[in-house]
Amino acid sequence: MIRVAFIGQQGHAGIGLGSVSETDDAEVGGFAPVQPEEMLGALEQWRQELGEVPAYQNYQELIEKQKPDLVQVSGAFYRNGVVAEYAAAHGCNVLVEKPVSTTLDLLEKLKEVVVRGGVRLTAMLTARFEPTFITAKKAVASGAIGEPLLVSAQKSYRFGKSRPAYFRQRKTYGGTIPWVGIHAIDWLHWLLDDPFARVTALHGNFNLEDYPGCEDAAAMLFELRNGGAALVSADYLRPSGASSHGDDRLRIAGSAGVLELMNGRVSLIDAGGERELPLEQPKDNVFTSFVRCLARGTEHPSGRMDAFRVTEVALKARDAADTGQPVSLLDSAYSVS
Amino acid sequence: MIRVAFIGQQGHAGIGLGSVSETDDAEVGGFAPVQPEEMLGALEQWRQELGEVPAYQNYQELIEKQKPDLVQVSGAFYRNGVVAEYAAAHGCNVLVEKPVSTTLDLLEKLKEVVVRGGVRLTAMLTARFEPTFITAKKAVASGAIGEPLLVSAQKSYRFGKSRPAYFRQRKTYGGTIPWVGIHAIDWLHWLLDDPFARVTALHGNFNLEDYPGCEDAAAMLFELRNGGAALVSADYLRPSGASSHGDDRLRIAGSAGVLELMNGRVSLIDAGGERELPLEQPKDNVFTSFVRCLARGTEHPSGRMDAFRVTEVALKARDAADTGQPVSLLDSAYSVS
Repeated sequence: MIRVAFIGQQGHAGIGLGSVSETDDAEVGGFAPVQPEEMLGALEQWRQELGEVPAYQNYQELIEKQKPDLVQVSGAFYRNGVVAEYAAAHGCNVLVEKPVSTTLDLLEKLKEVVVRGGVRLTAMLTARFEPTFITAKKAVASGAIGEPLLVSAQKSYRFGKSRPAYFRQRKTYGGTIPWVGIHAIDWLHWLLDDPFARVTALHGNFNLEDYPGCEDAAAMLFELRNGGAALVSADYLRPSGASSHGDDRLRIAGSAGVLELMNGRVSLIDAGGERELPLEQPKDNVFTSFVRCLARGTEHPSGRMDAFRVTEVALKARDAADTGQPVSLLDSAYSVS
Repeated sequence: MIRVAFIGQQGHAGIGLGSVSETDDAEVGGFAPVQPEEMLGALEQWRQELGEVPAYQNYQELIEKQKPDLVQVSGAFYRNGVVAEYAAAHGCNVLVEKPVSTTLDLLEKLKEVVVRGGVRLTAMLTARFEPTFITAKKAVASGAIGEPLLVSAQKSYRFGKSRPAYFRQRKTYGGTIPWVGIHAIDWLHWLLDDPFARVTALHGNFNLEDYPGCEDAAAMLFELRNGGAALVSADYLRPSGASSHGDDRLRIAGSAGVLELMNGRVSLIDAGGERELPLEQPKDNVFTSFVRCLARGTEHPSGRMDAFRVTEVALKARDAADTGQPVSLLDSAYSVS
């Protein structure tokens, strides 16, 4: 039985909060906010989701009292790495919001703590549990497109009327490449087995006057280890009149075929023609998969270093955009999965 | 009446050959190959298209004898700039295959000859006569998407079983960015009014063993003058089983909407919703438009420097891919249209 503690209610926190009741492998130890002042608004919502389980004003107390096996961390983005480090240092496995950290320094410290503690850390890399990406992964792995050579990936969101206050500043938000672009980076990491060799990038805030630290457009050019290329964009420019919140797209052109993901569908073109692929259905979400992995040793689709590596690539792409200079992605300390 | 001479039968030569009979403003002065040895195979085809008009073994003789007002140049790519220069130096207006030249040195010489001679040169920038791009141009110019901030553009072709021998070497082919990618570069030049500030690029030959000088995948990241970004790809990776030869795509996300061109359709998303735009129909093709412009002073959608500038951007993007270094696109000698 995996004893779970929930810290924070931001981002993808709902994944664990909403599915913990569905697994027999987990019990809820309690919950806490990332910062005590968030407790007031959060308590009622937590109780609705989890029932009458222990609530703590601060996460340190939650961890020390409940000694959870697993902590889900999902607060303001700049705090997640700090909380994850505290949890790992206290022997907890960690499911943390992506990016795992908003700075490379903390990422390195966090990795050391996780490795030293013999715990496991995974991140909310949600595509690995979506039918479209599972289907795409299987097709690429089966050799359906041959050697992947040219990739285009798009993340496009509506910004909406407002976002939490920590979106306003780089220091608390982290950047649109680490927050939004990281999903597309993860698609490439997962489907193409950490293909990244080098990145050049651009980003800017054009439209979001009240959120000066939040870039609304970002573009990245990745050189791949096999000599190929990936073009990746992330934006908040999807108009309010769009029919959906997000517009995820992925096209991988290979030596023997083109795979495409768009509008919730996956299609393949090869020498035999064009066709839509039947969608594979996930058995789990990232939370229930990780719980089962910890409880029963079953497979979890992110390796031990994947969340670190994907975060590293995102933060270095952000650096490339900040400086206008290409950044090498080879010789990573996080490449072994 | 515009006296036209045709030189070469490669690339888009069919545009003028196939439509010269449709305009009352032009008469055919004659035709010639770019290289005399091409005459044998070409003569019969020319006669079928144009009837019994004078044929010359070499283009210099054609130009000197016929004194054409307009020469259409469409030979092996590395020869087009040389022939265009000869024609311009002899007082002819020129419709030349794109890229106008495969080297920056010749491009500069050609421009000097054209300016000094007071003639006009345009290139086969065919998108400016396609319903989809005309529709997209009109929408962007009307402010439908606000300030354009993030662009994705794709050119994807089937390579087919074989290509002419000059595709085999860089020296005679010129490169896939100048031959294929240039179309997407032209879309941006036309729709966004020469937006280019800087380019980083990658390209490679992965699949085309018999054509070592022909890259089958290319990717470009353009920094735009307004701070925005454009991601552009060009490839020959479209599988033989695809339902069409090419897969042109363009997405422009702006401050007030997203315009998209795909599958021969143009769609717009803005605060009011999503909708497909009715397609504008062209009155001309690039040949008949240029003939009418020369004969009657009507508008031609490419300004005097456009073909030069688009070629310059393509050749500098090729340089960026060759060297792995970003190349500035500001302070162009060809920016005034």
